[in-house]
Amino acid sequence: MSDCIFCKIVNGEIPAAKVYENEHVLAFLDISQVTKGHTLVIPKVHKENVYELTEEVAANLFREVPKLANALKKAYDPIGMNILNNNGEHAGQSVFHYHIHLIPRYGEGDGFGAVWKTHNSEYSPEDLKKMASYIHSTL
Amino acid sequence: MSDCIFCKIVNGEIPAAKVYENEHVLAFLDISQVTKGHTLVIPKVHKENVYELTEEVAANLFREVPKLANALKKAYDPIGMNILNNNGEHAGQSVFHYHIHLIPRYGEGDGFGAVWKTHNSEYSPEDLKKMASYIHSTL
Repeated sequence: MSDCIFCKIVNGEIPAAKVYENEHVLAFLDISQVTKGHTLVIPKVHKENVYELTEEVAANLFREVPKLANALKKAYDPIGMNILNNNGEHAGQSVFHYHIHLIPRYGEGDGFGAVWKTHNSEYSPEDLKKMASYIHSTL
Repeated sequence: MSDCIFCKIVNGEIPAAKVYENEHVLAFLDISQVTKGHTLVIPKVHKENVYELTEEVAANLFREVPKLANALKKAYDPIGMNILNNNGEHAGQSVFHYHIHLIPRYGEGDGFGAVWKTHNSEYSPEDLKKMASYIHSTL
């Protein structure tokens, strides 16, 4: 897409700190490093979000993630790693070309964290089964 | 693995609210729903974390994610979706069988959110290029 910043990186029109690329995928450092080594992995083809990914694009993209995670681990010895993809402005997406964040973790206050409030008491096992069956019906 | 709760779900030894399964992958509702429809996608084979995934396991797993995300969108009409995988206790991993969270989003205070503190000023474009080249060397 002509006005997409990540497509411009793929096409070499604007620079990026590239970590890895192959026919399908490009990995480069996020210009806004949340933690040291924060890397983005994107499909070279323009897809806005997870809903638009074909099975093949999804498979080709994630196939490369374990080796990139291992490279980051070797490079900076983080104590953990979060792998995150945000879809939609309300979920924190700011560039509308699908991308996965690899965020090495170094401890409390390193820049990343998750707000995680569970709602266990609201759903019985029966409720969950009904929900699962309903979601399955929309597949 | 005999003492792994997710392996027991895969083997049918303990129940789960299953959304989808095929030869490689199982998707079921997280018993601790962070938001409505919060789904886990796991490989049937036991892998502890992203570092242990083979390329094939990673590809087979993520291939199924777009259709599951679309099913959740159809089922509950969320305004966004976060897709998250935590590796290591310090990154929030609590079950040590690889799993990806699909977390539909419904707005502020829905249960999920990300702490996101960038460190732009700490890294120049030159720094980022050097880091990318160093990470690449560990691939």
